[in-house]
Amino acid sequence: MLALDALAAQATGLSEPNPRVACRLILADGRVFEGHTQQAGGPHAEVMALRAAQAAGADTRGATAIVTLEPCSHHGRTPPCCDALIAAGVARVIVARQDPNPLVGGQGIARLRAAGIEVELLPTDHPLAIASRERNIGFLSRMTRGLPWVRMKMAASLDGTTALSNGVSQWITAEAARTDGHAWRKRAGAILTGIGTVLEDDPRLDVRLVETARQPLRVLVDSRLELPLDARIIAPPGALLVYTASDPAATTPKRTALAEQGVTVIDCPGPARPGSHAKVDLAALLRDLARRGVNELHVEAGHKLNGSLLREGLVDELLLYLAPKLLGPGLGLANIGPLTELAQGVELEFVEATPVGRDLRLRARLPGRFDRQD
Amino acid sequence: MLALDALAAQATGLSEPNPRVACRLILADGRVFEGHTQQAGGPHAEVMALRAAQAAGADTRGATAIVTLEPCSHHGRTPPCCDALIAAGVARVIVARQDPNPLVGGQGIARLRAAGIEVELLPTDHPLAIASRERNIGFLSRMTRGLPWVRMKMAASLDGTTALSNGVSQWITAEAARTDGHAWRKRAGAILTGIGTVLEDDPRLDVRLVETARQPLRVLVDSRLELPLDARIIAPPGALLVYTASDPAATTPKRTALAEQGVTVIDCPGPARPGSHAKVDLAALLRDLARRGVNELHVEAGHKLNGSLLREGLVDELLLYLAPKLLGPGLGLANIGPLTELAQGVELEFVEATPVGRDLRLRARLPGRFDRQD
Ligand SMILES: NC(=O)c1ccc[n+]([C@@H]2O[C@H](COP(=O)([O-])OP(=O)(O)OC[C@H]3O[C@@H](n4cnc5c(N)ncnc54)[C@H](OP(=O)(O)O)[C@@H]3O)[C@@H](O)[C@H]2O)c1
Ligand SMILES: NC(=O)c1ccc[n+]([C@@H]2O[C@H](COP(=O)([O-])OP(=O)(O)OC[C@H]3O[C@@H](n4cnc5c(N)ncnc54)[C@H](OP(=O)(O)O)[C@@H]3O)[C@@H](O)[C@H]2O)c1
Repeated sequence: MLALDALAAQATGLSEPNPRVACRLILADGRVFEGHTQQAGGPHAEVMALRAAQAAGADTRGATAIVTLEPCSHHGRTPPCCDALIAAGVARVIVARQDPNPLVGGQGIARLRAAGIEVELLPTDHPLAIASRERNIGFLSRMTRGLPWVRMKMAASLDGTTALSNGVSQWITAEAARTDGHAWRKRAGAILTGIGTVLEDDPRLDVRLVETARQPLRVLVDSRLELPLDARIIAPPGALLVYTASDPAATTPKRTALAEQGVTVIDCPGPARPGSHAKVDLAALLRDLARRGVNELHVEAGHKLNGSLLREGLVDELLLYLAPKLLGPGLGLANIGPLTELAQGVELEFVEATPVGRDLRLRARLPGRFDRQD
Repeated sequence: MLALDALAAQATGLSEPNPRVACRLILADGRVFEGHTQQAGGPHAEVMALRAAQAAGADTRGATAIVTLEPCSHHGRTPPCCDALIAAGVARVIVARQDPNPLVGGQGIARLRAAGIEVELLPTDHPLAIASRERNIGFLSRMTRGLPWVRMKMAASLDGTTALSNGVSQWITAEAARTDGHAWRKRAGAILTGIGTVLEDDPRLDVRLVETARQPLRVLVDSRLELPLDARIIAPPGALLVYTASDPAATTPKRTALAEQGVTVIDCPGPARPGSHAKVDLAALLRDLARRGVNELHVEAGHKLNGSLLREGLVDELLLYLAPKLLGPGLGLANIGPLTELAQGVELEFVEATPVGRDLRLRARLPGRFDRQD
């Protein structure tokens, strides 16, 4: 069954902001046809599988369909998949997960049943249901919370150093880990960083080391609009959004110059802070990204912005590449504390520990974030 | 075959300073008898297996013996195992690894062959040969280098913090990891710490959370002989060695009081350091511990002593328990640096990453330490 999740995975970097869904049709004559979600506006998984069957001249009447997410029942950019399954004469549909969108969840199943189709919804602890949730954790997050699934990527030595005190950080991990990191970037609707990282490292923050059909949005937190006009983050294909708390009147020339380069500047000031300049409202930023269709947000920032996101409880998952080396004190993962009691720390739960080349990939989640999706 | 290594493992905490060896006898009539090394001075694995066979009234002539380490050929505290195998009429011996002791390695095999026994030595990459090496890595280290295998245990948050800035460190990891840590303490011939940890945490450094037949030595690095007379490390069963660089004349009363409590004080001063008090010579300390029969040395110290041991290249392996939490900046794993280039870090290789309760156990080795034993 898990091969069906691997098929859904082929929609990664293609179907965003739509979920990654696969459909397998088992015909009455035993033949099998499959499909997965295409780019937004293109056909969904069910339609792809039905088209494959029709192209082979097969008779779809009486077929069984297995879908990793509930077929849609509403007219979006494409006609509802339920109607296609009904029209094809499918007899039985196995659904791995209900649609998490509270406005439409369950309606697809009801519509199929009303047409006389036998529908089985798998329990939420079924391996295919879990795989579907993980594959679409960002879509689930956006639909149920109005927030992207925030995955914070870090590369550190075993002793938790992400950069030496002099700022040197390239490269702590080896090439296999960096390539793996690009596969996670590709999953994301957007990649977020802070102005500190741009000024220090001048990264491009695009997907280069793995193939992709589309580039994620790039998103910069730049409270004072300090982004240099020749920063490399401006150049790659795909859009750059800069969230700022700067005074529009005082930064008009910079805004004009950035607009000329195709950069979108978004005013997103937080509450005034006595004794400090205004800072971007990070929670509002996340809500705005969800409204723009970002399912998974990949954060690659320095310890300051990481610390702010963690302190505000805005992070769902850590993606940590640990290099087998010790670097001693330097810049850490996240600027939190100083704590006086251990209980004040940020508690997590490990999700995985996997060797990637000579490095180790760890994932850990904030407790509750996981179940909340169920 | 790996069950034989599990049998050898039963000698852990029992056979020290002798290696952990298992022997399986397969008799001509198909019956199987086994044994493992007992406490030092007691019978070795081969004798235990032969005794079991004899107790059952079995005929050992023509039997095959599988031993995880070459049978001894010399009169130590016990008669040579080779002679016992020869006397029992064993026809064939499979040896997982040659004895690493350069003075006797190969002699046992030669002696068996001279008696007409067919001997097969497994290749060093055979699973049982690798298991035997890992099981006896400390014995191998002591025999080939005159040094214990130095395993540095640390418990840290995901961001590499081993204690908060105010010194609080109990407990960063959960109970399962602490119990696992005691199983690693039990493997060790000695447990080493620094005076900083004693003054801050007052640990006992004995084996409590798992069963053991003997307590490891406890070893303290205490350059100025600051050990309080009521420190808990003095109390548990087993010996405490205190290595110091203090002036014997100036510390006579303290030495007398410690001797009265059964503590052994060892003068081990390093070269004079202008502008600082004399410090213990850590390399000399390790050589002394090897002379005392310590195979594996378990280090549980703070970031200062950890840093010194690492800087001097005296560490072979890191045993790191990572808790799924972030604590922000505090005391780190090891006080090295500050570095100006990434290449100046301590390079390691991961050996394992295993969940232990909600925490993660990582082991990493200094490159070359592993192969050097082959
Ligand atoms: N190893 C890795 O995985 C990795 C990844 C990325 C970067 N790095 C390293 O990290 C270093 C840069 O660290 P950094 O901390 O300076 O950069 P950063 O975290 O990327 O960006 C810092 C900026 O974020 C802003 N920020 C923080 N909290 C905020 C909040 N609540 N609201 C709005 N803005 C907020 C701050 O703006 P204000 O100035 O307005 O306060 C600050 O200037 C570089 O050395 C880089 O190499 C390492
Ligand atoms: N999480 C964990 O795994 C863990 C384990 C143990 C301890 N800890 C924490 O670590 C903290 C204590 O750290 P610490 O660094 O102060 O203690 P430490 O490393 O155990 O001991 C420090 C002492 O080691 C001596 N030392 C260092 N290098 C030496 C050398 N080359 N030769 C001789 N002696 C040397 C120093 O002696 P001099 O004073 O003479 O220089 C220093 O006083 C405590 O907060 C404790 O809770 C955490």
